[in-house]
Amino acid sequence: MSDKKQSNQKGSGKKQKTAIQPTRLENYAEWYQQVVRAAEMAETSDVRGCMVIKPWGYAVWENIQQGLDGMFKATGHRNAYFPLFIPLSYLEKEAEHVEGFAKECAVVTHHRLEPDGEGGLQPAGALEEPLVVRPTSETIIGSTFAKWIESWRDLPLLINQWANVVRWEMRTRLFLRTAEFLWQEGHTAHATEEEAMEETLKMLEVYREFATEWLAMPVITGEKTEGERFPGAVNTFCIEGMMQDRKALQAGTSHFLGQNFSRAQDITFADRDTNIQHAWTTSWGVSTRLIGGLIMTHGDDDGMVMPPKVAPAHLVILPVLHKEETREQVLAYCERLAAELRSCRYGEAPVRVELDARDLRGGEKSWQWIKRGIPLRVEVGPRDMEQDAVFVARRDRPHSEKASIGRGEFIEGIDSLLEEIQVGMLHRAREHRDDHVRVIDTEQEFYDFFDKGSEGGGGFAMTHFCGSTELEDRIKKDLAVTVRCVPTRGQGLPGQDEAGTCPFTGEPSATRVVWAKSY
Amino acid sequence: MSDKKQSNQKGSGKKQKTAIQPTRLENYAEWYQQVVRAAEMAETSDVRGCMVIKPWGYAVWENIQQGLDGMFKATGHRNAYFPLFIPLSYLEKEAEHVEGFAKECAVVTHHRLEPDGEGGLQPAGALEEPLVVRPTSETIIGSTFAKWIESWRDLPLLINQWANVVRWEMRTRLFLRTAEFLWQEGHTAHATEEEAMEETLKMLEVYREFATEWLAMPVITGEKTEGERFPGAVNTFCIEGMMQDRKALQAGTSHFLGQNFSRAQDITFADRDTNIQHAWTTSWGVSTRLIGGLIMTHGDDDGMVMPPKVAPAHLVILPVLHKEETREQVLAYCERLAAELRSCRYGEAPVRVELDARDLRGGEKSWQWIKRGIPLRVEVGPRDMEQDAVFVARRDRPHSEKASIGRGEFIEGIDSLLEEIQVGMLHRAREHRDDHVRVIDTEQEFYDFFDKGSEGGGGFAMTHFCGSTELEDRIKKDLAVTVRCVPTRGQGLPGQDEAGTCPFTGEPSATRVVWAKSY
Repeated sequence: MSDKKQSNQKGSGKKQKTAIQPTRLENYAEWYQQVVRAAEMAETSDVRGCMVIKPWGYAVWENIQQGLDGMFKATGHRNAYFPLFIPLSYLEKEAEHVEGFAKECAVVTHHRLEPDGEGGLQPAGALEEPLVVRPTSETIIGSTFAKWIESWRDLPLLINQWANVVRWEMRTRLFLRTAEFLWQEGHTAHATEEEAMEETLKMLEVYREFATEWLAMPVITGEKTEGERFPGAVNTFCIEGMMQDRKALQAGTSHFLGQNFSRAQDITFADRDTNIQHAWTTSWGVSTRLIGGLIMTHGDDDGMVMPPKVAPAHLVILPVLHKEETREQVLAYCERLAAELRSCRYGEAPVRVELDARDLRGGEKSWQWIKRGIPLRVEVGPRDMEQDAVFVARRDRPHSEKASIGRGEFIEGIDSLLEEIQVGMLHRAREHRDDHVRVIDTEQEFYDFFDKGSEGGGGFAMTHFCGSTELEDRIKKDLAVTVRCVPTRGQGLPGQDEAGTCPFTGEPSATRVVWAKSY
Repeated sequence: MSDKKQSNQKGSGKKQKTAIQPTRLENYAEWYQQVVRAAEMAETSDVRGCMVIKPWGYAVWENIQQGLDGMFKATGHRNAYFPLFIPLSYLEKEAEHVEGFAKECAVVTHHRLEPDGEGGLQPAGALEEPLVVRPTSETIIGSTFAKWIESWRDLPLLINQWANVVRWEMRTRLFLRTAEFLWQEGHTAHATEEEAMEETLKMLEVYREFATEWLAMPVITGEKTEGERFPGAVNTFCIEGMMQDRKALQAGTSHFLGQNFSRAQDITFADRDTNIQHAWTTSWGVSTRLIGGLIMTHGDDDGMVMPPKVAPAHLVILPVLHKEETREQVLAYCERLAAELRSCRYGEAPVRVELDARDLRGGEKSWQWIKRGIPLRVEVGPRDMEQDAVFVARRDRPHSEKASIGRGEFIEGIDSLLEEIQVGMLHRAREHRDDHVRVIDTEQEFYDFFDKGSEGGGGFAMTHFCGSTELEDRIKKDLAVTVRCVPTRGQGLPGQDEAGTCPFTGEPSATRVVWAKSY
């Protein structure tokens, strides 16, 4: 949604036909909900704050899992599984940690149901110690690490878990903030501070690479300020993407936990000199929130647009079947085409093909797939078949733009066509992001930047910053804007590498920080 | 563990050195716990009844997931995800269902923690309606299906979920019976009774095939008697394996739910004549229990024995590094070998290779891998390297039996060697099973069969059966033996296909049933 397109749309008076009402410009928040619905990705359930992830949305999660899991394993991590429940006493061991999560814990207090005397049931069998449904697993995994680790030979211990977690949120939004969500949480223990910090940053880099290469979502890496740190962490690092409404989305975090949790959980090891030391630990996670980020980065007024790498299907074949006499032939032709395409690869993965021969009007069918964001729609009618050609529409182009292409040529070029779409989507998202990063040096300009009335605010403001928490609080109160991160050096952000002066306090500042409104 | 081996071991007086104490014969139940521990597959956690699945055990689960998931997708199912929590009122809608699970429900009653005034925390924010942590998801998925299904065009609806579930068990055993476990639950809805029954049996067949081909675990398929049915089901079908102690393990179930849940949840559809009808539903599941079955089917007195198809790694390369002058060379040779092997395939999957260059005594290292059950151990020392050969030990053969084989020959034959092991393990397990299936026609013989004193009882007894629940209860009380299933016809079980007379009551019986002690 570049400025140009926005103003075109605004200016045209006559609206283009779009699948999603309202459009992004009219009401971005509502547009988001409508895309999630129209693309059949998720829906609210009757259980407060919990979502149902529908097959098309869940398939995106499966592709995310597969991609990330490969990267975790390539960096030496192994998966394991730990209990869903955490005894209250475990959570209490790390004071900041429990304080951070106490307000959003689902608590199990009973272990059976019994008749309530009025024909219904009531909880019974009270537990001696309440159990908290894990909001994150540092404490329960830490207590296990304490048993697994004896000497330096057991280190580093590099573990990941794919799991559901629960944080009782009062205001929820599908994928972005739900009471239950799916995620992965990495937990590692190291012999030295340096090694643990190296791991923390390595996994941050894995997240950056994954967001960029797989989700086509450009992100800034950086460190959180004190107020935004993970409860119990020494340092929290993050990746931050810019959505189309120019708000920031924290899409993943990697925490250097120092010895905080190893002291609380007594994770010790005998070093090479047989001295007992506390281990240094890290944790890092991304969640189904990434899918929300994917929608807000790539979706348009016609619905979802899927980057091929994580798209549940790369293309759908839509046979044109209304002539009874050619019906069988066209269908057989499409089935052969589907089989041929399935034997091709996009990168490492087989090409994922849907063949939609449902008895539906062509237009209706086509719109369903547009809304779902499938990268390619391939129509085949009797005439195409005669010419041994297919009629191809790309989701990253206007929906009326279609081109006839020889079947052989199409099959041969499928890998590079999908890669072109993938790379193009990243390029477009990066352009949008770069267009809305602004170097700002005065308080006035800063307030103007975020005060333009547009719901999404002005974008990412890069200012010098003295580090004052009071200042952050004031700006948050005034503008609902926060420091998203102190960006990692060397990622080519404008004006990042000079020292300067905080425009709000006049105090010296070593580097610029990124401010934005956020999800 | 054939009878012959048992008696040899018994008779020899001098015990063979084994990695697991006690042996299977000495104490099967304790042997099982020790294998789980020694193979580093799982351990108990500090949370009552919940286990920690360690990386080696979790990798087996990942392979099981991958294999089954492919089979589910090939039969038209799609994955989705539904809430962890079930409102109490949902569970109450199907009377038999809630009765079946009421005694083992973890109940969430509060949504935050607050200071208890004594420096600790206590549950706060009482929920208006308690939430049950899903013991299974028929009710919550059913309520979603009711929204998704409008007409016959929406059917069949074929959904699967990979998830954790909680059943508060009083007596737990790692993998076999834990309060929390991982599983998949398929849920489908159909327009007709026939179609739903067809689906139920199709998925039973998927389970049979998976258990046989992937887990090398021969299973009998059949239907449960009334008392063993899933709460709320019309028919429950199962796969039953025989463990080495001759007890049965129910390894998977597939339920025909009729219209019970669709009536309770109001899952209706407009048929082709626009009449509103209740859908016919099914559900089916297997869990981490399969890993317990795997251990009890294949493990021996040296530890776990992994069937290659689900083994976390197919082989480990063990470089012999004690000579300093050849150390570098041997290591480089092994790394090349590992890379070559990783580019090979076993069936559809890449060969999974571990290279263990840890600084440990060779014997100790070797025993670790034996206990973990890795199919092949490949030793490479300076002399092997000179001859461009490797020294190979198979886990399915005695651990002292090793053979030198040329490197090229070994690499070329890796696929067929692994398949030979896989097939051999199935063959061995099937022989054991078949040796302990007995056709029985008198009550006396039946009681003798199960009363021999061996902890595991006599095996699978196939008798005619009148179908009386009182009779089943009596035999359960007398011998702790139950009807495992009324076996599906045509699977080659002895004496199955004639009608006859119940040996206990003299009543007529259409087919034999399978009795056994069970897990």
